[in-house]
Amino acid sequence: MDNLLNIPGIEISTGKEDLLCYSFDASNAEAALPMAVAWPRKTDEVARIIKHAYENNLGIISRGAGTGMAGASVPRGRGIVLSFEKMKKILDVDTRNMTVVVEPGVINGRLQKELEYLGFFYPPDPASLNTCTIGGNVATNAGGPRALKYGVTRDYVMGIEAVIPDGAVISTGGKTHKRVVGYDLKGLLVGSEGTLAAITKIRLKMLPLPEDIITLLVLFSDLEASGTAVAKIISSKVIPRTMELLDRSSIEAIENYKPTGLPADVDALLLIELDGYPATIKKEAERVVDICNTLRGEVIVAEDTMARERLWEARRSISPALYHLKPTKINEDIVVPRDKVPAVLVELRKLSESSGIKIISFGHAGDGNIHVNIMVDVNNKEEYRKGRELVKKVFEITLKLGGSISGEHGIGLMKAPYLNMEVKEKELGLMRGIKGVFDPKGIMNPGKIFG
Amino acid sequence: MDNLLNIPGIEISTGKEDLLCYSFDASNAEAALPMAVAWPRKTDEVARIIKHAYENNLGIISRGAGTGMAGASVPRGRGIVLSFEKMKKILDVDTRNMTVVVEPGVINGRLQKELEYLGFFYPPDPASLNTCTIGGNVATNAGGPRALKYGVTRDYVMGIEAVIPDGAVISTGGKTHKRVVGYDLKGLLVGSEGTLAAITKIRLKMLPLPEDIITLLVLFSDLEASGTAVAKIISSKVIPRTMELLDRSSIEAIENYKPTGLPADVDALLLIELDGYPATIKKEAERVVDICNTLRGEVIVAEDTMARERLWEARRSISPALYHLKPTKINEDIVVPRDKVPAVLVELRKLSESSGIKIISFGHAGDGNIHVNIMVDVNNKEEYRKGRELVKKVFEITLKLGGSISGEHGIGLMKAPYLNMEVKEKELGLMRGIKGVFDPKGIMNPGKIFG
Repeated sequence: MDNLLNIPGIEISTGKEDLLCYSFDASNAEAALPMAVAWPRKTDEVARIIKHAYENNLGIISRGAGTGMAGASVPRGRGIVLSFEKMKKILDVDTRNMTVVVEPGVINGRLQKELEYLGFFYPPDPASLNTCTIGGNVATNAGGPRALKYGVTRDYVMGIEAVIPDGAVISTGGKTHKRVVGYDLKGLLVGSEGTLAAITKIRLKMLPLPEDIITLLVLFSDLEASGTAVAKIISSKVIPRTMELLDRSSIEAIENYKPTGLPADVDALLLIELDGYPATIKKEAERVVDICNTLRGEVIVAEDTMARERLWEARRSISPALYHLKPTKINEDIVVPRDKVPAVLVELRKLSESSGIKIISFGHAGDGNIHVNIMVDVNNKEEYRKGRELVKKVFEITLKLGGSISGEHGIGLMKAPYLNMEVKEKELGLMRGIKGVFDPKGIMNPGKIFG
Repeated sequence: MDNLLNIPGIEISTGKEDLLCYSFDASNAEAALPMAVAWPRKTDEVARIIKHAYENNLGIISRGAGTGMAGASVPRGRGIVLSFEKMKKILDVDTRNMTVVVEPGVINGRLQKELEYLGFFYPPDPASLNTCTIGGNVATNAGGPRALKYGVTRDYVMGIEAVIPDGAVISTGGKTHKRVVGYDLKGLLVGSEGTLAAITKIRLKMLPLPEDIITLLVLFSDLEASGTAVAKIISSKVIPRTMELLDRSSIEAIENYKPTGLPADVDALLLIELDGYPATIKKEAERVVDICNTLRGEVIVAEDTMARERLWEARRSISPALYHLKPTKINEDIVVPRDKVPAVLVELRKLSESSGIKIISFGHAGDGNIHVNIMVDVNNKEEYRKGRELVKKVFEITLKLGGSISGEHGIGLMKAPYLNMEVKEKELGLMRGIKGVFDPKGIMNPGKIFG
């Protein structure tokens, strides 16, 4: 092995198969081989790897499970992938203070299950929850359907231990919810996509597990009515934990892939979940049903856990289902103010019709976060080029409606060329300045966010 | 007027009476005269004042209502006070998206009332809510009793417009809850105590107004039992909106000042408030009563709005009441993990007994945030010196228990000498680096946080 990549006591590989396996993520970012892959087992090992990289001007690409949609864990330049898959311990569940400390490689779904077993609840639930890691969730400030009621990863991070480029271990935040002692470094690390430091421990807030859940499926014969329903439900002061929207083309995609009995002739559907005390959510459900009926939505109640799971299985199968339509999806996760959801859906449909390229929209309608899937074939150069050109148009529509080009996936490599559509030069300058404070040599995840 | 302080079109004064009025805040920080006081009326005026200061190397001390407890708005060095009292418009209440945009000089209590009138709710409620401004709340990341259930100011800030030292107007965050586009500059400005930029507009999240409230007063004959009750209530998965604790000496202070009928022979009391749907909180209240009874707490239910207001009036009168015990209170707002509340209260009582100086503790027991009042007479030099020495001991106790030296007041001038007890050199270095990125000339609130 190249002597430069031999760090005593560290499990590190330069084997071709390892380099290949760690050269891509769930995005369309072009795969690129790292110089090596390292698997640290504790903070001290992370610190030694990073110090070594710092001294030798090598890049560090932190990586959880590689489920990122924006390419933040795809290597660029000469660098070492820092895989956190062997740092996966749940270190401390403190039920009295309702916090839990985890290593970054802990899988989101595993944490959920462990806490549920104890009667607690970790709300952020990205669709990839059975694979993605908490470290990756923190790096991208991940959301998920339940963000509508419960907020995103940022809202649950109480403390972070991290290694900065010179190899020093920093600690920020702590075991108390309130804390105003200088600048919020912890908050800065959340969503920084590995460009400032490598996160080695995370203290999360947890909540009591809700006592009960009601799941409703509402079918609409008109896309706009579904958007109106979302706005009316919130205005009626009911905050469901999820309000997921599927448009006609998403429903068709699911039914063609793996029929689940969703009626293919509806224009849109909402998957609405309420949680809390049984008496409370029963009352809330009545309000939701009333509102949907007024808008001529047909409401189906999931009577038991199995029925509920079947509905969620359908929702979660969209992503794989889309690949049966076209080999390539260009997946954007725009977000607009909640009351602009109907407008953005109509605009996207128009864009699809005028371009002749299928655009499938679904997502977290309750908080305005829509996953826009531009379906193309990467091997059809002309079609792929046209698809990529639509990205900019999608962002223009989004920004015109007061939205943002990324709700929960981050910027990574894929959106770096578009960042300045939303963030202006002064603000970008401040961000670059902050990057320089943490990472003067630019070794942390080079090429990401700022291009 | 000094030509240096003549900024065309800006209302600015160098009158002695104005300088005096803006030379102090609610802390014990030594008053110091600014060079001038300016009252901008819009963002553009703020930008012109700051640009002028930048070009002439003058400090800028942003100021809301001056209710800060840590001296962050007390001038240091050659500077202009930027008073936001004339920027007090509520600019846009958007009920569909549940957000509101305000100018920084809007008074917290006024916003609360305006939103309640529309059926909405802005949770952060510092005790000074009828005076303090939203701008000041954001600058210190203010909390309040309801933070237990609803979080602090940071949790409600969706977007910020601010002026940075070169006079440029920046905008960060926006109208959507989800947003991952580069670093979270907005989060960095929250709690930065005017040391990075001057905040000129704030977009806040609001919530639906809870349908009902139940207020309970619980009397304990044993201080530790009250702390245990707090922990048990949360463990039972009831999250009240407030759990305020008064110890024996706080109760005595109130009763001596303005008798409200609180029994003076109890060792501690909790003021507990539950909010939500009537059926839900009725059930939660039953759980709370059961837990408190088991710990031999005597529960009194506030039967109506008047009874509730009477209880809160007593709670809010502690601060003025304390001045009747001793002319000077050294007020610290430590925070410990919730399960350490009994321990910290016992330690503080011991410290009071061993030092012979009265220490009165009360505060937000539910989230571990305790206001520790060291009662002395500033004119009794020896006593004042002893009192100030106790501050360090209080912080040592707090940090040993895993807490923080400031829960919601910030660092300002008063805690700057102690900052490095909690924040280590590396982390401080990063904070100073960030300060340098925003404010290379060091004109924004000089001397604050970092000393």
